[in-house]
Amino acid sequence: MNIIRHEPGKILSSAVEYGNLVFIAGTVPEDTSKPIEDQTREVLARIDALLKKAGTSKSKVLWANCWLTDIRNRDGMNKAWLEWVDPANTPARATVEAKLADPNILVEIAMVAGK
Amino acid sequence: MNIIRHEPGKILSSAVEYGNLVFIAGTVPEDTSKPIEDQTREVLARIDALLKKAGTSKSKVLWANCWLTDIRNRDGMNKAWLEWVDPANTPARATVEAKLADPNILVEIAMVAGK
Amino acid sequence: MNIIRHEPGKILSSAVEYGNLVFIAGTVPEDTSKPIEDQTREVLARIDALLKKAGTSKSKVLWANCWLTDIRNRDGMNKAWLEWVDPANTPARATVEAKLADPNILVEIAMVAGK
Repeated sequence: MNIIRHEPGKILSSAVEYGNLVFIAGTVPEDTSKPIEDQTREVLARIDALLKKAGTSKSKVLWANCWLTDIRNRDGMNKAWLEWVDPANTPARATVEAKLADPNILVEIAMVAGK
Repeated sequence: MNIIRHEPGKILSSAVEYGNLVFIAGTVPEDTSKPIEDQTREVLARIDALLKKAGTSKSKVLWANCWLTDIRNRDGMNKAWLEWVDPANTPARATVEAKLADPNILVEIAMVAGK
Repeated sequence: MNIIRHEPGKILSSAVEYGNLVFIAGTVPEDTSKPIEDQTREVLARIDALLKKAGTSKSKVLWANCWLTDIRNRDGMNKAWLEWVDPANTPARATVEAKLADPNILVEIAMVAGK
């Protein structure tokens, strides 16, 4: 079964297609000066672009893992998530607190999608 | 390939079937007054019900991610896990510490199962 | 679809094959006296052996989740990762900080691979 790697880098690829599955890497915002809602919006827009490159969309997301540097930002993340998610097709999701690569990054999200 | 979402909510679905795979959301206990063993038992009973809804069972679990708010609760979690898990069919598993949505939640577990 | 469990234990299996997917458990080093580079090298060598048992290799890794007890060890982990990873076939990856089973364990890595 063919493996297709999108935005392949030296360390990781941003998304990997394998048969009918798409794996999205832990995605973080570039503009880390903004509050949690905006950082989440940027991450989800970035993921939308990756899902599209892999031939799928947010309506086919199966699973998401969200990491917040401060779990108290969950409501802010969920505000942006609710604007984004297809209400008829919500994925399984787990959200936990974790320090991330840079202290100014407030949110990181990884996903597995179908096609 | 058809996606079937179980207990779909506005933010997430509790379980998602996709072909021969079942994704179980990060599952937490409702009664957070109890010690780790009981919280884990409640989570695993909840997951059993979700696996059943998705047409599978604990003997088909492929992968589990466990988060503990205090990694020192690992032995307590494992006590309940050993009561639960099919000894002939143990999944791959990762257990790490993470703060969770509410400080009284001691454990959250997500899984991927086959069918 | 057949499930094949490698190094099955009472609590978990080190790797699980399911159709064309291989799930590698959260893997930690045995020698925790060494610095992050060496601990990462040991984990990745251990994962190489598990991938081989499951009939695949590092060139087919789809997704990786890395946990570091101190996110500042990311550069050290990446040094060993870059020595290891197939540069033409890098997986999607997420790296976050989390306390692990033992305070001397600096890194834990789980993966999903194709075949």
